[in-house]
Amino acid sequence: MTKNAVVLLSGGLDSATVMAIAAVCGFACHALSFRYGQRHEAEIEAAKAVAKSQGAAAHAVMEIDLGAFGGSALTGDMEVPKGRAMEEISSAESGIPVTYVPARNTIFLSFALAWAETLDARDIFIGVNALDYSGYPDCRPEYIEAFQKMANLATKAGVESEGAGTTGMTIHTPLIEMTKAEIIAMGAKLDVDYALTVSCYDPLDDGRACGGCDACLLRLKGFAEAGLSDPIAYAAGGG
Amino acid sequence: MTKNAVVLLSGGLDSATVMAIAAVCGFACHALSFRYGQRHEAEIEAAKAVAKSQGAAAHAVMEIDLGAFGGSALTGDMEVPKGRAMEEISSAESGIPVTYVPARNTIFLSFALAWAETLDARDIFIGVNALDYSGYPDCRPEYIEAFQKMANLATKAGVESEGAGTTGMTIHTPLIEMTKAEIIAMGAKLDVDYALTVSCYDPLDDGRACGGCDACLLRLKGFAEAGLSDPIAYAAGGG
Repeated sequence: MTKNAVVLLSGGLDSATVMAIAAVCGFACHALSFRYGQRHEAEIEAAKAVAKSQGAAAHAVMEIDLGAFGGSALTGDMEVPKGRAMEEISSAESGIPVTYVPARNTIFLSFALAWAETLDARDIFIGVNALDYSGYPDCRPEYIEAFQKMANLATKAGVESEGAGTTGMTIHTPLIEMTKAEIIAMGAKLDVDYALTVSCYDPLDDGRACGGCDACLLRLKGFAEAGLSDPIAYAAGGG
Repeated sequence: MTKNAVVLLSGGLDSATVMAIAAVCGFACHALSFRYGQRHEAEIEAAKAVAKSQGAAAHAVMEIDLGAFGGSALTGDMEVPKGRAMEEISSAESGIPVTYVPARNTIFLSFALAWAETLDARDIFIGVNALDYSGYPDCRPEYIEAFQKMANLATKAGVESEGAGTTGMTIHTPLIEMTKAEIIAMGAKLDVDYALTVSCYDPLDDGRACGGCDACLLRLKGFAEAGLSDPIAYAAGGG
């Protein structure tokens, strides 16, 4: 019998690769995306296209209004940094960047946990990455480990599996120790259509990526190092 | 300077008492309620009335659509058990009840965590109770402890306080070891207006409590043991 898994799918490169990995491991993927605050609708459209192209068993889009809390970092008003050096982007010493959204992965994983319980699934996949994580605390392995422990205490599935001596909820992070180039090479092998994905924090009105934000710079460097060309369009001067 | 706290406020008896405790401890209470799935609007109205009567600094109502996941336990279609014996209600051996909502406290606490970070607050209050918890896994002390640990790994506040050797996020559960009678006696001392609160899982159309569901039975027993009379209206035959 095919086992169900919940896969957090942002519409970006990493989560598209994670879903391909979950599928190749034999899971029926239930993709979960979020529409929150000022996020670009393009990401949701990308997530839908990725879910469809990879044959997801289901795709749910949750609406959450983080803007209700009124924090400036949540409303999308902050300025996205451009043209930072790679050392600055990838170093934890640079501190937590302005693009950090408070408790975002915790909220996302909590909804994934609720859906997993409903599906009687024991497996959740998330595309966090500890190498290129740009100082986000909720992308570190010790955070994921703590979430998994909490998740098993939180849920019926965890309580039952503890009683039965079986594995409870597992938070899978297949990309956590991979470089962007390794992620792209893996996704290419698994036929991920990266043309469908969006990564840019600050795309142009016509949908092209800016080419200068942290996400664009990491993506372009990854494709270059993997020896592949990025199929998406960038603004002239960027990329 | 008054310190900010986020207080999860359901509109029920327990969370109203928790908010009074947080206020008496000197916190500026930022109340957080949720409108989800098939929940009764009466609870949101009760939460608003409680927040107002206790002088909350702010009150946010988040909309979340757990029904998007399609599980029957989430849509409110299940039958609420009535007239269960107190031993059955309070015993963990009875298993997890049908009124359990997958990962509910985890989702609620995750949003509280996001708001706390935005407010630069380090304190979150939740009215979970381990004695009358009716077999809900996410009301146990070990669950709260695991959530707090995860929260400190998840957030900027946690990372910074780790560096500074200070206390990070604290999940306060002042009711966790109290009986319902003790909670009510405490709330009465702090002038909580229990007439504003609702507890019933299955209220009548006119707003009266059913008097027979687990929540009503626990509430009525609590008032009786505290030697106080419950100011809310019950259906004839119930209560």
